[in-house]
Amino acid sequence: MIALTLGAFRYKMVIAVRTDLEMGKGKAAIEVAHAAISALEEARRLHHDWADAWLNEGQPKIAVKVGSDNDLVTLNDEAIHLGLPTALVRDKGLTQVPPDTVTCLGIGPAPAEIIDKMTGHLKLL
Amino acid sequence: MIALTLGAFRYKMVIAVRTDLEMGKGKAAIEVAHAAISALEEARRLHHDWADAWLNEGQPKIAVKVGSDNDLVTLNDEAIHLGLPTALVRDKGLTQVPPDTVTCLGIGPAPAEIIDKMTGHLKLL
Repeated sequence: MIALTLGAFRYKMVIAVRTDLEMGKGKAAIEVAHAAISALEEARRLHHDWADAWLNEGQPKIAVKVGSDNDLVTLNDEAIHLGLPTALVRDKGLTQVPPDTVTCLGIGPAPAEIIDKMTGHLKLL
Repeated sequence: MIALTLGAFRYKMVIAVRTDLEMGKGKAAIEVAHAAISALEEARRLHHDWADAWLNEGQPKIAVKVGSDNDLVTLNDEAIHLGLPTALVRDKGLTQVPPDTVTCLGIGPAPAEIIDKMTGHLKLL
């Protein structure tokens, strides 16, 4: 339902979250927020027009699941290869996960059709 | 533990989340990210120096619980009264909650001592 609705937007952000870490709700929310803010900052550097357009559209975003550290890093490499802004979040490990654990990845804001091609197969968190 | 660690930072952001809505992990994460981005944008308008300092410190943030719509609105009023940047998130209601539901509130980035005074009693999400 949300994926369908987001289909109407020209720009979107996707945040991929590792489910194998079994982070609690608050921890996961903070990591996702961190990825979202950092990806937006990166978009401002790479494609200011994408960042502005996305904010004007109401900053549509979805969280999706990935199963491992390796999946997250691979997804990041693909996104960078396509020229998309990304932010890979490394946790300081002060709470629920070991230091330097990669927890999630923000991709975009970027044109929806490019983001959909690379993340459309991932399940919603 | 994280509250203790965040005590070392000069600036922080707090995102208060309604627990009575029983949002799922993905939904809650997206709402928190929305609040965080919007509160940062508001801080850029009100106190650009707070926003910049917070980003430079690694954007420390925590998510805390509130029990109702009314608690969230009251907290927002208090924060605005203190001159803090805030962002109250109203959900479009396309998925888990009815349209125009207030789901969470971002406060800050702002000086930690001001934020702590008004949110220090709230439990971590």
